[in-house]
Amino acid sequence: MKTGQVSHRIQTLFLSAQDVAVIVRRKGLEFCFSQLVDVMRADFLRWADFDKSARVARYSPNGVIELMPIADSKTYSFKYVNGHPLNTQLGLPTVMAFGVLADMNTGTLELISELTLTTALRTAAASALAARALARPDCRSMALIGNGAQSEFQALAFHYLLGIRELRLFDPDVEATRKLMRNLQAFDLGLTACDSVGEAVRGADIVTTITAHSGLAEVLDAEMLDAGMHINAVGGDSPGKTELDPSILRRGQVFVEYEPQTRAEGELQRQPGDFAVTELWRVLAGQAKGRVDAQQITIFDSVGFALEDYSALRLMRDLARELEVGQAIGIVPELADPKDLFGYLNLLNNEPQRAYIGPLCSQTEKEVCG
Amino acid sequence: MKTGQVSHRIQTLFLSAQDVAVIVRRKGLEFCFSQLVDVMRADFLRWADFDKSARVARYSPNGVIELMPIADSKTYSFKYVNGHPLNTQLGLPTVMAFGVLADMNTGTLELISELTLTTALRTAAASALAARALARPDCRSMALIGNGAQSEFQALAFHYLLGIRELRLFDPDVEATRKLMRNLQAFDLGLTACDSVGEAVRGADIVTTITAHSGLAEVLDAEMLDAGMHINAVGGDSPGKTELDPSILRRGQVFVEYEPQTRAEGELQRQPGDFAVTELWRVLAGQAKGRVDAQQITIFDSVGFALEDYSALRLMRDLARELEVGQAIGIVPELADPKDLFGYLNLLNNEPQRAYIGPLCSQTEKEVCG
Repeated sequence: MKTGQVSHRIQTLFLSAQDVAVIVRRKGLEFCFSQLVDVMRADFLRWADFDKSARVARYSPNGVIELMPIADSKTYSFKYVNGHPLNTQLGLPTVMAFGVLADMNTGTLELISELTLTTALRTAAASALAARALARPDCRSMALIGNGAQSEFQALAFHYLLGIRELRLFDPDVEATRKLMRNLQAFDLGLTACDSVGEAVRGADIVTTITAHSGLAEVLDAEMLDAGMHINAVGGDSPGKTELDPSILRRGQVFVEYEPQTRAEGELQRQPGDFAVTELWRVLAGQAKGRVDAQQITIFDSVGFALEDYSALRLMRDLARELEVGQAIGIVPELADPKDLFGYLNLLNNEPQRAYIGPLCSQTEKEVCG
Repeated sequence: MKTGQVSHRIQTLFLSAQDVAVIVRRKGLEFCFSQLVDVMRADFLRWADFDKSARVARYSPNGVIELMPIADSKTYSFKYVNGHPLNTQLGLPTVMAFGVLADMNTGTLELISELTLTTALRTAAASALAARALARPDCRSMALIGNGAQSEFQALAFHYLLGIRELRLFDPDVEATRKLMRNLQAFDLGLTACDSVGEAVRGADIVTTITAHSGLAEVLDAEMLDAGMHINAVGGDSPGKTELDPSILRRGQVFVEYEPQTRAEGELQRQPGDFAVTELWRVLAGQAKGRVDAQQITIFDSVGFALEDYSALRLMRDLARELEVGQAIGIVPELADPKDLFGYLNLLNNEPQRAYIGPLCSQTEKEVCG
């Protein structure tokens, strides 16, 4: 598409939401979850390589917009993500996201990708990675409290990666539960719609809470819990937003992604500052105990950490290259002389401009461009 | 392009580097500078409306990658930008950037735009905005120390907005100076290539330093200065990176964009923590004095602030809409049911996917798509 002396080095790969859907369809959901858990585990194991920080948030009365940067010595990554619980009333998703990979040595933008679908995939994969280390190996049933946009992803990640066969579902919005059951009917899963949180939790091995409540909600009460349960608490993920009765955390051992962030954003915000927690990477690395016996209650207080997006973005980039999905976009000007940015404006003549759609062209794009 | 019940509300406008070049060519550079200064001034005047913070940086041995978020009650904005002084040796720009506008009330991504060209435009406009408030009204000559990618933009912003007619140029890379003179030959400007910083500065009314030195450089010495000069110090803009002999700041009054950020990143980092400075917005609002007499030396210690990108992105979005430049991209999945993200994967059948190039189609895009 480009000719002459200008190099292609600063073209950026763009992956739309449709591109990521194409990747997941072609590779299969089970493969994607399995790969995500593998790359995420490998990245958690080199925890010290990363320059980490809590996310940077801007708050409005209806929600939050966050930036989540992280970098190792080679690759910089960040995610833009919002959380607006009232969005569904407007026909909009609660969570929308995109992410970037860049070269730490030059700042070159390598990838701009959707991260709405990918966040749902990576959040479920992170939950499964934690549960493999923390839940009883014989877990077969899971309560799913909150049946919104992320619920199918949690259900299937636990089905494929932990052998969950029975799901007990609850959402105050019965239409959400119906949608979840419709979407999962083709999978080998027993599905039970329940009338209350208590009914859903009763007898479950794992309890996943993934609600979009704002405020200090207590979706789950301590008296609902049985010995040996694993709690996968995903929905409480910003200051002032929690899901669990605070006494639940005192009944078991709490595991987190990145302690400084979880203290501000997770269920931990309702505990004293010195409440003992264990970072997940230490369990994966064998530096800390996970579950100690079959009676213990384990709690994964997940808020979502930038490293999970770093892992997911790198996987999506690699799969996109393998499948030749995506577009090259000219978000950065390609300059024959890097000091001649002004010349790029081409102010003094009106020669036709070069196209900025590059040689990579997704399936969907081909349908448009021919 | 899209049919059925799915709304178009979450399509994002994408502006490539070529799109912004098209906008600048069609509207003219003088118009763009003039508009930029106007919108930036208006936004500086509502300083208290913005949720401000210093940028979030990740450092590598060769440079820095930064995120610069800012928001008012309606609009969220951020910029991704790198600074890698050695990039030109690899044929890459020193600075590459892109930016985003989003709706604070829903998190919807409204715009993803190139910001490499736009940063050069907005930095020059911010310099001109400050100089209009701080330099002597009778300034006609400017020394331009550093003739790299941003130098033409500084030269022409000061030409159009302050009436600068004479430029005195210096760069240790004589090819950079030749490029600058070639690019400016069609404009009504007297151009003098000088053999040293001292020669360039001698007799100039305004001195603009815009070098990409890393480390604590002292491009400008205090003894070079004359009474009444305005110093527009643009290049020293990250921790450990400065351009001025520190005693220069003590010879005049120092003005900054956002004090907490400039203390960490600007020439101020070589001064005591209580060194007195004035934020530019206070001068624009009439709350603080600018220049007090024709003999005073004024110094604008510019590091670049997120508010300038917020202003520039909104202007580019408005001009793109007016000119119908840019593309609608599907970075966020459009869902008929916002709780049914899983359904978007369309795992159970292989119907042809909808295209994600929307109704907006730039000139360059039309050449490709027909």
